Amino acid sequence: MTWIFNESSEFAQEMVSGFVNVHSALVRQVSGGVVRNTKSKPGSVAVIIGGGSGHYPAFAGLVGQGLAHGAVLGNVFASPSAQQIYSVARAANNGGGVLLAFGNYAGDVLHFGRACERLRSEGIPCETIAITDDISSATPDEMSRRRGVAGDLVVFKIAAAAAERGDSLADVLAVAHAANQQTRTLGVAFSGCTLPGAKQPLFSVPAGMMALGMGMHGEPGISEIPLPSAKNLANMLVESLLTELPEGVMQPRGARIGVIVNGLGSVKYEELFVLWHNVQQCLVPKGVKIADVQVGEFVTSFNMAGISLTFIWFNDESLEKLWLAPANSPAFCRSSVLSYQPLTDFHQSAVTERSVPRGSPASRQTANCIVAIINALTKTLIDNAEELGRIDAVAGDGDHGMTMKRGAIAAQRAALNALQQHAGAGSMLQIVGDAWANDAGGTSGAIWGVILNTIGSALGNTDKPDAAGISNAIVQSCHEVMHFGKARPGDKTLVDVLLPFSQALVENVNRKMPLAKAWKAAAEVARQSAQQTAQLLPRIGRARPLAERSIGSPDAGAISLALMVETVSTYLSECAALEE
Amino acid sequence: MTWIFNESSEFAQEMVSGFVNVHSALVRQVSGGVVRNTKSKPGSVAVIIGGGSGHYPAFAGLVGQGLAHGAVLGNVFASPSAQQIYSVARAANNGGGVLLAFGNYAGDVLHFGRACERLRSEGIPCETIAITDDISSATPDEMSRRRGVAGDLVVFKIAAAAAERGDSLADVLAVAHAANQQTRTLGVAFSGCTLPGAKQPLFSVPAGMMALGMGMHGEPGISEIPLPSAKNLANMLVESLLTELPEGVMQPRGARIGVIVNGLGSVKYEELFVLWHNVQQCLVPKGVKIADVQVGEFVTSFNMAGISLTFIWFNDESLEKLWLAPANSPAFCRSSVLSYQPLTDFHQSAVTERSVPRGSPASRQTANCIVAIINALTKTLIDNAEELGRIDAVAGDGDHGMTMKRGAIAAQRAALNALQQHAGAGSMLQIVGDAWANDAGGTSGAIWGVILNTIGSALGNTDKPDAAGISNAIVQSCHEVMHFGKARPGDKTLVDVLLPFSQALVENVNRKMPLAKAWKAAAEVARQSAQQTAQLLPRIGRARPLAERSIGSPDAGAISLALMVETVSTYLSECAALEE
Repeated sequence: MTWIFNESSEFAQEMVSGFVNVHSALVRQVSGGVVRNTKSKPGSVAVIIGGGSGHYPAFAGLVGQGLAHGAVLGNVFASPSAQQIYSVARAANNGGGVLLAFGNYAGDVLHFGRACERLRSEGIPCETIAITDDISSATPDEMSRRRGVAGDLVVFKIAAAAAERGDSLADVLAVAHAANQQTRTLGVAFSGCTLPGAKQPLFSVPAGMMALGMGMHGEPGISEIPLPSAKNLANMLVESLLTELPEGVMQPRGARIGVIVNGLGSVKYEELFVLWHNVQQCLVPKGVKIADVQVGEFVTSFNMAGISLTFIWFNDESLEKLWLAPANSPAFCRSSVLSYQPLTDFHQSAVTERSVPRGSPASRQTANCIVAIINALTKTLIDNAEELGRIDAVAGDGDHGMTMKRGAIAAQRAALNALQQHAGAGSMLQIVGDAWANDAGGTSGAIWGVILNTIGSALGNTDKPDAAGISNAIVQSCHEVMHFGKARPGDKTLVDVLLPFSQALVENVNRKMPLAKAWKAAAEVARQSAQQTAQLLPRIGRARPLAERSIGSPDAGAISLALMVETVSTYLSECAALEE
Repeated sequence: MTWIFNESSEFAQEMVSGFVNVHSALVRQVSGGVVRNTKSKPGSVAVIIGGGSGHYPAFAGLVGQGLAHGAVLGNVFASPSAQQIYSVARAANNGGGVLLAFGNYAGDVLHFGRACERLRSEGIPCETIAITDDISSATPDEMSRRRGVAGDLVVFKIAAAAAERGDSLADVLAVAHAANQQTRTLGVAFSGCTLPGAKQPLFSVPAGMMALGMGMHGEPGISEIPLPSAKNLANMLVESLLTELPEGVMQPRGARIGVIVNGLGSVKYEELFVLWHNVQQCLVPKGVKIADVQVGEFVTSFNMAGISLTFIWFNDESLEKLWLAPANSPAFCRSSVLSYQPLTDFHQSAVTERSVPRGSPASRQTANCIVAIINALTKTLIDNAEELGRIDAVAGDGDHGMTMKRGAIAAQRAALNALQQHAGAGSMLQIVGDAWANDAGGTSGAIWGVILNTIGSALGNTDKPDAAGISNAIVQSCHEVMHFGKARPGDKTLVDVLLPFSQALVENVNRKMPLAKAWKAAAEVARQSAQQTAQLLPRIGRARPLAERSIGSPDAGAISLALMVETVSTYLSECAALEE
């Protein structure tokens, strides 16, 4: 799918206009494509690259110092014409001759070949190189029939770096050939792609399948297999690439390589980093030395979902040097004006676990009781996780049940740990609160961290907490939640339960009710308040339509709090340590 | 859809490992996230950014000199915990205090707030800023409730540049607030997104619709409308953003702005450049001065298809300077070690139209006849475009009919032009060949350029071509096609027609047949040869499965050639100028 276009026939043209406008410090538009907008060394070879559009940053994004001198830009997925190539080459020529570099596709071979002849006929020395890194597109004995994919970048970059240092056209050509010979790519696709304005996809991959070796214009590959795990995918790619060692490389062990993990469009950076992590795990035991890794989008296929893995075998030291040389193009840079010193003496100031002060015997008795309560709460939250998820899904992402469950389980583990360290009630609740917040994450995790921490601070590690102390601690926790969460009563959050609950609890305790009874009565207030949140319009963290959607449905956080309050209620009478 | 993962619970962790491994020169992993791996100025403020994962380059990719000092990385779409934030801040602290900067989401506000209190309690000066650039997420009178989206980058970059120049924590905070106040974003979404391992999309957008103002976690926006053209989309975004001028900006005219065109994931660079082209067209008549444009992926939402447009209003000169200051992070760089001189004296050596030598009267008569033949060929190709497309779709992308039609129409126009310039037959065919190749593009365009150019060179502009000359010219054109296209007989290309046709024609002419008769007999050979390509296995430009698929179906290029030969045949007898 392409979403942003006017007339599909104007797409490539508008794209170039926008691109040149953004990057006018580096490139300028000429008839047929773009050239550097910076001065190049007089007499140096000009490296001209190009092909169809739809592969950005190939080809326009790879023009700039240390990279190409010009790029010829065809229509979407269509070779540029010889006339365009000729025009861009003429504009970029520095008097040192021209190298035309492009992926090995029939149309490109023809048009670049024609342009080369025309340039020569006008006295401009010219050579061509068709890049052939895609190992899936032909067998090793037909290497010259292979297509060019992400290896385009390798050949462009290395040839251009040679041109930059002043090599002759013959030498630049030789370096480009060497780079091409040392570079191997294998790609996979997970989805197809639809061109601007087209009603049908140009090609597609069945859902849940992976096309091994599919080309970047949808050229079918070697096979279609069910989507593997990242680990298996990495393994498959690495093993395939290692069966094709270029001349001069005896074995992977000890060989130096550059790696490119290339995204074709819709497979995003996070996934590319996961893939690289898994590829690296495969390479380490092979003893391959990784000289450089590039992870990103370099040669794409619109928004096709796919990736490719490229190895550049640096048995030649000079290739590695050229690959690592500085460059400054719109989409590929190496080096910065910011000189830097590596952080050699870094030692992370260890985030020490809080040391747990030993609680008084009375407070440790309370802590024991808290452990039992947390076990009960955890059971309640596990039992109700699905239902809480359903309530949350009305106006949220439906993860409230899972998040609360995760927090409770972490709290349970932390509580046992604190118990073993003889924690008092205060430390116990703080440790439990931190564990809950860290493991649950999200808003509710933070809120529960605040609640438990605040109650813990209020209870301390010395005295046996009484009903007044406990009810005041809960009132404080409500204030803290409102302070941190910025939620006010009526915002349809758990404040709409915590506030009336804590007020009722304090009132009941002030009327000298024993804690268990006071809590039980307040728990009923909590239950009712939670149900009443169904009538409210949320104002925190939700956009308007979502907010409206939730009217008639209670707030999931309010419901889970009421459930927890009720659980504590049924438990309190059994817990002598909290009774007067 | 997420394609590359092992266990979804390990996704964020593996992502960070891969990321840090790739960018180890710039960043290092610490508990909770990443920090710069380069030395920072002692005593300078540390800018710590963060949020959930799934928004790369936010947040890990924005750590480095001139940008953030550290990034806290939560789980996918979930706030990091206060513990993580605390840990990263401790690791990045340079002794000048810490600014915590993050998008204004409930969970982030809570966790960063907690971490801030903890840092302060340990004597580390700390401030927070919650970024609120998304104008669709709340009304202007509730600005502080707005979400943070691509404006994150603006606040991070500007605050960090202030820290870099040595500003105090209070000053860095003030600059960050100013940057936030001057920045406005509006986004749209075209599709939803599915998280690693999830069976259902977290959110979605109906096909053909656009969700205006949808948030980067799928928070519903203002409205859903049918997908507009790029121009209307640009206009809608610009007009909305211009209704919200920040304080200190009286009117758009004369105001200086920075622009960010941000891709959310699956909307690719080509489309982003098209969008910028259209946005720029809207801004020019408003008289807004564009100080900087960034087009790319800065704050994403996995592979959600969507874009956002951000304006930064530089009424303060110092903000602009900080925004433009050098930076060197994995995903956002400004500046290069490569100093450059702009190409001020550039004049594209105009690619002059070939001057058309005046043909002899005899040759001009032939040219006249060629114009008529080209008209006939154009009609044939227009009439058969659909059928040729159907044949091509069996093993290709189905565009052969359209491409040939486009080439023929360009040829027709060029031929009339050449006629007016008194071209002889040779020039006529060369001009026609160039026009065909340039406008048709692709492989067939190049091939037809070669064929027509070669015949033109052979015929010249002086003599009236005879049957021997014509048949030899066609033989030559076949050699040229084989030379350029690298196709051999049997490769299932138009060579499988051109070769037998040209051989038959020469034989017939050698047997003293008149041209029209010789051609007619050879045309029958062409017709049969074209049909016989159905039995062949293609070897050029097609991968194996595609090649196999095409067995039983003739080659579209071979069929179109045979049709053209036949058209010429029916025409030749009427064309006295080519008859003996």
